[in-house]
Amino acid sequence: MIVVLKPNTPEGDITAVVEEIKRLNYEPRVLRGVELTVIAAIGDERTHSNLETLTVFPQVDRVMPVQSRYKLVKRQVHPSNSVIQVDGRIPLGGKKLQVMAGPCSVESEKQLLSTAHAVKKAGATILRGGAFKPRTSPYEFQGLGEQGLKLLAKAKRETGLAIITELLSEQHADLVAEYADVLQIGTRNAQNFQLLIAAAKTGKPVLLKRGLSMRIEEWLLAGEYVIANGNPNLIFCERGIRTFETYTRNTLDLAAIPIIKQESHCPIVIDPSQGAGRADLVVAMCKGAVAMGADALLIEVHPNPAEAWSDGAQQLSLDGFAKLMETLNPFIAAAGRE
Amino acid sequence: MIVVLKPNTPEGDITAVVEEIKRLNYEPRVLRGVELTVIAAIGDERTHSNLETLTVFPQVDRVMPVQSRYKLVKRQVHPSNSVIQVDGRIPLGGKKLQVMAGPCSVESEKQLLSTAHAVKKAGATILRGGAFKPRTSPYEFQGLGEQGLKLLAKAKRETGLAIITELLSEQHADLVAEYADVLQIGTRNAQNFQLLIAAAKTGKPVLLKRGLSMRIEEWLLAGEYVIANGNPNLIFCERGIRTFETYTRNTLDLAAIPIIKQESHCPIVIDPSQGAGRADLVVAMCKGAVAMGADALLIEVHPNPAEAWSDGAQQLSLDGFAKLMETLNPFIAAAGRE
Amino acid sequence: MIVVLKPNTPEGDITAVVEEIKRLNYEPRVLRGVELTVIAAIGDERTHSNLETLTVFPQVDRVMPVQSRYKLVKRQVHPSNSVIQVDGRIPLGGKKLQVMAGPCSVESEKQLLSTAHAVKKAGATILRGGAFKPRTSPYEFQGLGEQGLKLLAKAKRETGLAIITELLSEQHADLVAEYADVLQIGTRNAQNFQLLIAAAKTGKPVLLKRGLSMRIEEWLLAGEYVIANGNPNLIFCERGIRTFETYTRNTLDLAAIPIIKQESHCPIVIDPSQGAGRADLVVAMCKGAVAMGADALLIEVHPNPAEAWSDGAQQLSLDGFAKLMETLNPFIAAAGRE
Amino acid sequence: MIVVLKPNTPEGDITAVVEEIKRLNYEPRVLRGVELTVIAAIGDERTHSNLETLTVFPQVDRVMPVQSRYKLVKRQVHPSNSVIQVDGRIPLGGKKLQVMAGPCSVESEKQLLSTAHAVKKAGATILRGGAFKPRTSPYEFQGLGEQGLKLLAKAKRETGLAIITELLSEQHADLVAEYADVLQIGTRNAQNFQLLIAAAKTGKPVLLKRGLSMRIEEWLLAGEYVIANGNPNLIFCERGIRTFETYTRNTLDLAAIPIIKQESHCPIVIDPSQGAGRADLVVAMCKGAVAMGADALLIEVHPNPAEAWSDGAQQLSLDGFAKLMETLNPFIAAAGRE
Repeated sequence: MIVVLKPNTPEGDITAVVEEIKRLNYEPRVLRGVELTVIAAIGDERTHSNLETLTVFPQVDRVMPVQSRYKLVKRQVHPSNSVIQVDGRIPLGGKKLQVMAGPCSVESEKQLLSTAHAVKKAGATILRGGAFKPRTSPYEFQGLGEQGLKLLAKAKRETGLAIITELLSEQHADLVAEYADVLQIGTRNAQNFQLLIAAAKTGKPVLLKRGLSMRIEEWLLAGEYVIANGNPNLIFCERGIRTFETYTRNTLDLAAIPIIKQESHCPIVIDPSQGAGRADLVVAMCKGAVAMGADALLIEVHPNPAEAWSDGAQQLSLDGFAKLMETLNPFIAAAGRE
Repeated sequence: MIVVLKPNTPEGDITAVVEEIKRLNYEPRVLRGVELTVIAAIGDERTHSNLETLTVFPQVDRVMPVQSRYKLVKRQVHPSNSVIQVDGRIPLGGKKLQVMAGPCSVESEKQLLSTAHAVKKAGATILRGGAFKPRTSPYEFQGLGEQGLKLLAKAKRETGLAIITELLSEQHADLVAEYADVLQIGTRNAQNFQLLIAAAKTGKPVLLKRGLSMRIEEWLLAGEYVIANGNPNLIFCERGIRTFETYTRNTLDLAAIPIIKQESHCPIVIDPSQGAGRADLVVAMCKGAVAMGADALLIEVHPNPAEAWSDGAQQLSLDGFAKLMETLNPFIAAAGRE
Repeated sequence: MIVVLKPNTPEGDITAVVEEIKRLNYEPRVLRGVELTVIAAIGDERTHSNLETLTVFPQVDRVMPVQSRYKLVKRQVHPSNSVIQVDGRIPLGGKKLQVMAGPCSVESEKQLLSTAHAVKKAGATILRGGAFKPRTSPYEFQGLGEQGLKLLAKAKRETGLAIITELLSEQHADLVAEYADVLQIGTRNAQNFQLLIAAAKTGKPVLLKRGLSMRIEEWLLAGEYVIANGNPNLIFCERGIRTFETYTRNTLDLAAIPIIKQESHCPIVIDPSQGAGRADLVVAMCKGAVAMGADALLIEVHPNPAEAWSDGAQQLSLDGFAKLMETLNPFIAAAGRE
Repeated sequence: MIVVLKPNTPEGDITAVVEEIKRLNYEPRVLRGVELTVIAAIGDERTHSNLETLTVFPQVDRVMPVQSRYKLVKRQVHPSNSVIQVDGRIPLGGKKLQVMAGPCSVESEKQLLSTAHAVKKAGATILRGGAFKPRTSPYEFQGLGEQGLKLLAKAKRETGLAIITELLSEQHADLVAEYADVLQIGTRNAQNFQLLIAAAKTGKPVLLKRGLSMRIEEWLLAGEYVIANGNPNLIFCERGIRTFETYTRNTLDLAAIPIIKQESHCPIVIDPSQGAGRADLVVAMCKGAVAMGADALLIEVHPNPAEAWSDGAQQLSLDGFAKLMETLNPFIAAAGRE
């Protein structure tokens, strides 16, 4: 770490900081500059104490970390891309672009199965659908629960699609893992570390959505909780961050694709439905995501969006989805994917 | 709700929306304006379906809700201030300004007890201290767990201070509630609805920190989860929101005080330590909070901040805290509090 | 507009609002709902007074506009895309994707001409380069001024590239317009309305960058200043907005492409250099921009980025630019552009 | 500056960076750490080239500046508070809290004079009122222009109040300075550097509002433009920043008070009207501002807010203002001000 002292710090006060740095097991190197003195503290920032506490010394202006705080998610420890086998057979993170599609919420057998057959036909390989739903208001539909999971299982049996569904309680981890091929951690739980640990321990692939106001570093560190708890099958999912803009529900940060590819070996998925909050923008966002190198798309599809029990405004119709898949073909080719 | 149609919508398309509104059990009133037609849909927006799904109709431009989505936290259902009795004896939300103080993390018996005695002497009535700590990185200190709770209990026996500590797992709810007089829900769990429900069910007062990027409405709705699950002892706590500014760790939104007082009957607490991330700004922020009508302050205090195991940079020393309490006196008087 | 009254407003207070609405030349329609009364005020919101002042009545909860505030930039007044002829010969907004490239600042004849020849060869049609530079600090390089403009003119004569350069003072409007084929209004001046008017009056095409924290509506309204002052040659340019994220300098909001296309008839250009702040992300962002339908790209290119006098970190080398142009070809084809 | 190299950078690549640092006139010191090598580059970061261009070297991970970029606004160059004499007689930045009050826009003689007499009587010493108004839409009232300035002059003659009014065009600088005792630079022009220079050159005190999404450092640097152009009479004004919150128009960042006091010697003024966007929150915000050490308040007051031509929702009535001034007295005393 770099410890920046205030201008004109007397020699004795410099020594006091140097001594404290030694006490915390770093090796200090004092650098006297034109205007300021800075102390480089050499040591492993992840295993030693955090030197930020030094800012309680009045002569310390700032402490700047230089090492990254994450390690297992890092590209360097695994220079090639991690390819995750969903349900042991669907590679995510490889050459083939995967598409996960389905309704925001599982509402009924008819709704789910008609969607499943349609998205399968259009080219999706994984079915999404919420059985447990985190809702901003306690008065909104909270999902069908286990019954929803059973419908997902039925859809899987009928179509062969793998299943991704949200886990929102540590207490449901085993139950949801029994039915799901990928556990989705939602944006509101992206730093619910107990849930991340519980999800990791099921051994199932974990798709970690970015929190509404999560910096890239915090997102990587949340992912670190999954791998550090013994589960290497980690997938990042960008779904829009919260900004001042109100035209869209969230601001989809597509730069997350090249950034995650650069920093990490894990696959990156784009969820344009949440990002846009409006079906009419989803198509353009999918094109951008594919062109920029996303490994998969996660798209909300509903047989009758106007009657959806949650987030109807952002769900594509079955027809709309089929058309989207066709539209994407040249972009998939241009991106060198299948 | 107000359904705004696109300009020049043909009559038949207007009728289609009107029919859908009726089908969803609202009573439509068509208003033909100079440029636009809007349809007012009369009905209870909380019990009926959400009309936002109507935006999938191409002729619908926007749907604007007019009713507030929360009810039990609302000032109107309880026009006077709710006063919550912490540990059955410390009124929070009444005329007396309460001060909650203590270390970010419980680290040792010596650290905790010396802090407890000092903050008690300086005027605090509630001891804070984290036993279970949510940390951005899995490699950071995660708290002493149950041992930490036991130390808090010991501090309570010795000083008479009530205890506030964080709950971060549904599975710890009963354990933490056994020791704590107030359960704190941290900012990263502010929309972990399962945790809110588990906290509510313990019956203990729940202090709900505002999420990093939570709008006031979402915060009130998260509080609604607590009251709707049978626990009226809800306390809101502003601790800074995430913005583009990097000088401070977060941006403390002191306007939350008059806003919560206007919208809700629940008490509002200010946590300036998290808001500032820097001890040197905490004093000014406490003055502002008291002047603007906060019901309590939640302040991080540590016997030796430079050696704190977490967030040292923002913790006051014991002396610093004692001086702060004296400094606040004229502002407490000016605000008409005790 | 829709005027929402507070619950349980007495009849007399409703009448007072109705009378005020009439006085302001709107036609009021009172709608009594289950919980609330709302008043629809029918009239042209752009020519009448703004009813938001009604919120000073204590019985008024909110006033919600329903009409859009912009008109001349609106897609509806010009249903087909506006195609702007840059220098009377380079169509922007049509089938051909245009590329504007060049250094952040004009530094010397050698630097500019070598760049101009290189970007021309790689396929760019418009040369960018700042002669007047708005810099965060007064101690940073402020541009070569008129000398820079003359170098741009020379580069134009030698290469045939049209010229885009920034206008940052009303007092330079005529001078800059003499040399430039497109006047660029920078992000910090995006709501400097006097500058927008001065730029409009030159008659040259105006490229309006989005302000750092400008909502789409505000951006469209700033553009409205240009067209309302007699200049229909308006071009929008997204260059990244300010968010909490610090990994990138700004967050490039690529959703602006389909949104501007939907709301407006004006062309939309993407500036990935400013958005990323890092050359290594520029390529991916260009791919996304092209796929999503951008009409042009604005890219910073420098013969030796490490020696650039401003913003070196985000400038591509000449080679890097040539490779980028090749890489983009399949995406341009996929997007149906030339 | 600190140059952080990527892990495992070969010796030759380290040398290349060292050479470049020397070429740019810094003195390099190589520090080999446990995981990373960093190079401290010693030199004056304000007069030398900016080393950020080094990030174009692939082996460079990050460049971190250590010196502050501003100097003349800095507390260190002027350890005591700067007290600015407005109109040569009203000290701003000293022991007395000053109050600037008046309408958002000057609308008529009657409106302005009745307000001026009322705010004077209630204790204000400076009259505010916009003659030139920057409006988001070109169709909104743009101010009375020079006629408005003349009305302000008349109000000054009648009441003895000093005048603050906005400057929004370089071309108006002399005209506005003829009438105004303080030139206000609005939030949208906070980085319109040409305007800052023009304002500075009039010699009149300059009140610089913080830009909507300006970091503290950028605000200080914009202020640096004023002092560096020969005008030491610089006043900072916090008026709310743009965040994701929509309940208030902006988020008033009251922490700016202690931060500006710490970083700079210049006075700091709070504008709660713009910050809140709602008159009902203004009172609480004024209390907080006074308690936290603001040197002055800037408050919108109108004889009939419901009929204001701009921003009626956030203006206090004459009575409301008089009551506010009484309410503030105990807080002014508690803050040790007059």
